[in-house]
Amino acid sequence: MINVAVIGASGYTGLELVKILAGHPRFELAYVATSEGGMRLTELHPAMQGIFECDVHKADAAAVAASCELAFLALPHMTAMGFVKELMALGVKVVDLSADYRLKRETYEAHYVPHIDPENLEHAVYGLPELNREAIRSARLVANPGCYPTASILGLLPFTKYIDEDFPVFIDAKSGVSGAGKKCTTSTHFVSINENIFAYKPFEHRHEPEIREKLLLDSGKDFDINFVPHLIPATRGELIDAYALLKEEIDPIAVLKAYYADEPFVRIFENPVDIKACSGTNFCDIYAKVRGKKLYVNSSVDNIVRGSSSQAVANANLMMGLEENTGIPIIAYVP
Amino acid sequence: MINVAVIGASGYTGLELVKILAGHPRFELAYVATSEGGMRLTELHPAMQGIFECDVHKADAAAVAASCELAFLALPHMTAMGFVKELMALGVKVVDLSADYRLKRETYEAHYVPHIDPENLEHAVYGLPELNREAIRSARLVANPGCYPTASILGLLPFTKYIDEDFPVFIDAKSGVSGAGKKCTTSTHFVSINENIFAYKPFEHRHEPEIREKLLLDSGKDFDINFVPHLIPATRGELIDAYALLKEEIDPIAVLKAYYADEPFVRIFENPVDIKACSGTNFCDIYAKVRGKKLYVNSSVDNIVRGSSSQAVANANLMMGLEENTGIPIIAYVP
Amino acid sequence: MINVAVIGASGYTGLELVKILAGHPRFELAYVATSEGGMRLTELHPAMQGIFECDVHKADAAAVAASCELAFLALPHMTAMGFVKELMALGVKVVDLSADYRLKRETYEAHYVPHIDPENLEHAVYGLPELNREAIRSARLVANPGCYPTASILGLLPFTKYIDEDFPVFIDAKSGVSGAGKKCTTSTHFVSINENIFAYKPFEHRHEPEIREKLLLDSGKDFDINFVPHLIPATRGELIDAYALLKEEIDPIAVLKAYYADEPFVRIFENPVDIKACSGTNFCDIYAKVRGKKLYVNSSVDNIVRGSSSQAVANANLMMGLEENTGIPIIAYVP
Amino acid sequence: MINVAVIGASGYTGLELVKILAGHPRFELAYVATSEGGMRLTELHPAMQGIFECDVHKADAAAVAASCELAFLALPHMTAMGFVKELMALGVKVVDLSADYRLKRETYEAHYVPHIDPENLEHAVYGLPELNREAIRSARLVANPGCYPTASILGLLPFTKYIDEDFPVFIDAKSGVSGAGKKCTTSTHFVSINENIFAYKPFEHRHEPEIREKLLLDSGKDFDINFVPHLIPATRGELIDAYALLKEEIDPIAVLKAYYADEPFVRIFENPVDIKACSGTNFCDIYAKVRGKKLYVNSSVDNIVRGSSSQAVANANLMMGLEENTGIPIIAYVP
Repeated sequence: MINVAVIGASGYTGLELVKILAGHPRFELAYVATSEGGMRLTELHPAMQGIFECDVHKADAAAVAASCELAFLALPHMTAMGFVKELMALGVKVVDLSADYRLKRETYEAHYVPHIDPENLEHAVYGLPELNREAIRSARLVANPGCYPTASILGLLPFTKYIDEDFPVFIDAKSGVSGAGKKCTTSTHFVSINENIFAYKPFEHRHEPEIREKLLLDSGKDFDINFVPHLIPATRGELIDAYALLKEEIDPIAVLKAYYADEPFVRIFENPVDIKACSGTNFCDIYAKVRGKKLYVNSSVDNIVRGSSSQAVANANLMMGLEENTGIPIIAYVP
Repeated sequence: MINVAVIGASGYTGLELVKILAGHPRFELAYVATSEGGMRLTELHPAMQGIFECDVHKADAAAVAASCELAFLALPHMTAMGFVKELMALGVKVVDLSADYRLKRETYEAHYVPHIDPENLEHAVYGLPELNREAIRSARLVANPGCYPTASILGLLPFTKYIDEDFPVFIDAKSGVSGAGKKCTTSTHFVSINENIFAYKPFEHRHEPEIREKLLLDSGKDFDINFVPHLIPATRGELIDAYALLKEEIDPIAVLKAYYADEPFVRIFENPVDIKACSGTNFCDIYAKVRGKKLYVNSSVDNIVRGSSSQAVANANLMMGLEENTGIPIIAYVP
Repeated sequence: MINVAVIGASGYTGLELVKILAGHPRFELAYVATSEGGMRLTELHPAMQGIFECDVHKADAAAVAASCELAFLALPHMTAMGFVKELMALGVKVVDLSADYRLKRETYEAHYVPHIDPENLEHAVYGLPELNREAIRSARLVANPGCYPTASILGLLPFTKYIDEDFPVFIDAKSGVSGAGKKCTTSTHFVSINENIFAYKPFEHRHEPEIREKLLLDSGKDFDINFVPHLIPATRGELIDAYALLKEEIDPIAVLKAYYADEPFVRIFENPVDIKACSGTNFCDIYAKVRGKKLYVNSSVDNIVRGSSSQAVANANLMMGLEENTGIPIIAYVP
Repeated sequence: MINVAVIGASGYTGLELVKILAGHPRFELAYVATSEGGMRLTELHPAMQGIFECDVHKADAAAVAASCELAFLALPHMTAMGFVKELMALGVKVVDLSADYRLKRETYEAHYVPHIDPENLEHAVYGLPELNREAIRSARLVANPGCYPTASILGLLPFTKYIDEDFPVFIDAKSGVSGAGKKCTTSTHFVSINENIFAYKPFEHRHEPEIREKLLLDSGKDFDINFVPHLIPATRGELIDAYALLKEEIDPIAVLKAYYADEPFVRIFENPVDIKACSGTNFCDIYAKVRGKKLYVNSSVDNIVRGSSSQAVANANLMMGLEENTGIPIIAYVP
């Protein structure tokens, strides 16, 4: 058994990590921490009663290093950097779920804050296995992708050679409320979002440069990504609808099937996808359609599972030399 | 037109009051206030754009008295008392939506705090028209009933002469999340309550003594009320299921129809009621069934309309000599 | 009072029509019918108990003509035509809520079936007041717009002179489940759509040619409209997100405000709109943003109110010489 | 591996059975059938794509017997009997999820139809492990309990010796919509039940005699059970609130903890339970409170998991000599 830690266990992603690790056949969840600490896990997450219990510590890098080989960090952006730096210096492998190590330094600093750990940033690997599987295997620090970028990039990757980069790509995204985080705000109050839907930060969301950068790195093409996310009255789940112009006519389903033929965690559907079929799982479900030169790509992930926790564990599996699918959830929360 | 004020306009009840008063044919909404003030109404409630606009003041009793004959107070329990006292001294008629004037002093002080305005408390009238219509007409201060008590009392009143008071009465109540208030808490976060239901404060809710006291005042019988409320994943609405033992067998629908024959805002149904048919309206919908000596009463109100705002406006109509139904909403939010 | 009829009163739109007409100060709802007939209105719609009651007839054109000056038809597409033809021949004015008279004959026949009433089709007026107010006033037959077209057209009209018609316009739409109709299907089963979202008929929805035709008629520009609707887990409401390229840079909010300066039922917002603020009302709420030459338009209507019933009543008001806003709902179903 | 069959795989319970069996370490899902058959599993349940695939047959007892040792039947009440009889005659062990073998013959015939298989009924074992574990181990036919009875009986069992049987026991139950079945009806249409709640069949539900009989068999006391179920706007989950009078004062949490000390699938909570903490799992969560002689019991199960599918698989584990918890889901669908 390989000892692992979860730092930032109180949020939704933290809970999903604990759920996966509690049943993982090779990882032992040996250290759990929040910013405050000082309670038992089942006080934090009553659903774990009868399944898994442990103390929840106040996060301490030395304590992590003393017992664990790898740590999952579910900390806020800009906060994570400091802790990652400490853990890396102590020789702990890290899967960071924040945005702090996902981007090139100039992109990060344009959208967040000055980076305080450029050294580790240099060597961090973007944790999308379908893109970077081999690099992840040998990485000591993996930057877990954002939820919207996961579904957007996986949806668009097969089409980058066909899309006309002289025209904008529009991405209209919809996410369940867990994507907004556990903090109670006006937007996340049940009465505000139930029976409601609205866009937020149109053309201003930080996931936009992440999608753009990764598609550029892979294809060499600097697509003009225009991203508009929405909150929907669901607990979990995320749907991406991307619109672009093609340079040539293609058979989009054939393109998808060829591109992902060997990828067990990407499923191609011949009808529009929904968010329940992959909820609770590591699957990304994709559909696409063309009309003349117009391309429509439709993809879905569970924002706090494949968009976050399960992808992190899949990355950790690769980093620790295990099969990528070890302990990875695949049974959906249906019906 | 009669000038009225709404103090405490930022919450859900405040918004419902503004909605009703904006279209009221005889009341002019002349003064709107919150604890902070300093914005325009449509900043507070964007849905009112194009319908009604005004300044939102920081609540001031003298300012209210200078322009208004009657004020609606939607302030927190225990806070309302101070403001009511001021307004009454200035000659303003008041409909108070808090619990501060609903109960006999000893009941209030047993469940809340020492009462700081026993003089006005003495003369306050409990604002349930089906019980106290005449007293409301001549009242200067009306204490608007709680939402759960409104539906519970209306449901049980017709049966008090038949219920065996030697046996407990159990009330299992269900409310939409607006009943928990606008403040963001763990319970009201969409992710917590969506797809969920749970009881809270079983046998400990402050509405229990209110229900008990009013049934006693009306019937002379001190029923052993045992109240368990629940939150359900709906925005508005409230369902009451009451269980009791009868002293004799009765035809419960006939009893209901006879008791409420002349009450336009109580509707009797011959099947279990739901919360949508009366949502957005001043109706209380009731159904009942017996099996031998066991009585089941099922009643529903919109918790922030009949359970609060519309009942307050109906009370104000009576206090100001208008027809009770003036400007009162009756068209439900269906389908 | 002007006697009016509602034919097809059993569905969601039928119920909304009855709700509006029951409180209309000048229209008397004198004849209500469904395909079967033979019950009382409150059996069909229990929420109307205590508000409005009448017999529900089996639809008969002669009976309508005998008592009513105007009829609202909420019948399925392709069925409506037959009944409209009969009513028009009997001299009844008609507001038809189906698609049967909305389009030019060739467009209609390309997407529906051969038209059996080309004579009346010739003179039918498309019932979007912001476009056709004067023609509606003198019309004997008004074709009420589809729900998605209402919000899409109103959102795009102000921008047609600026949009580059050489580039596709993408419309990503989201609708509450009432838009799918009252018929129980796999998609409308609560368990299917709760906690879910999915696109349907991408690039194949019949509202697409309707949007295209009306924008062409108004602007002379034949935009390449690409429409993808989605179902969301809400009861009512509809959000439109449209993406296009501009020929020049503009201030979109200024454009919207200027275009709709005199339109009381279109509200311009300076932030993304939501579907609750206009739910239950005749308002269309619009927001827009540009980034360089990229245009984002965001508009919302209640699909069964402004997208259907209230717009129909507004049209009838105009046809019968009343003020357009007579009896038109404006208070939203908030919070 | 032990070959098992699922007959009636198209409904919600059928899907949950397939989900559990697809990952079961000792059961091989070797035969899947619906009434019609003739498709592939992933056509029936797209969420299983990439996880499990097989043909779906038209149910045939001989085909089942030819390949399987045990069959799970998820067929409608009254239909199941015929198929069970065939399978038993062919030597197949059966876990029947219908009501057909749960009750004594006279109770069954009083509430359903004449029983056509009294011989097997005689030997059928009621599949509640906490009650009948040993009998289940040696059973050839297990009758899986109803969902409401599972939570009601588990909640009340520890208190039967304390409850005063001279007084009614009231059970107010709430269930997610999956409990109403996959068939589309007025009640299960999203628009009907979203934002809504209502009781149905008050004092008339068939689960009432089941609860009563099992409590009598265990305690010797014939409680006067009065059961009122409700539908709530959630997909899955079930909450029970039971109210009774005690003969003596007790510490209810201590009673629960003692009673269920060795039961891994019953969790005792010291606060009211909710339906999410056990959703997707085989757990039954229970809380209780007393006030004087009044008892309040609050229990929760996932209606289509512990209330159905996972309990069936736990029973099958026992029947086939495996550990009861083999392949049984315990990780909840939280947050």
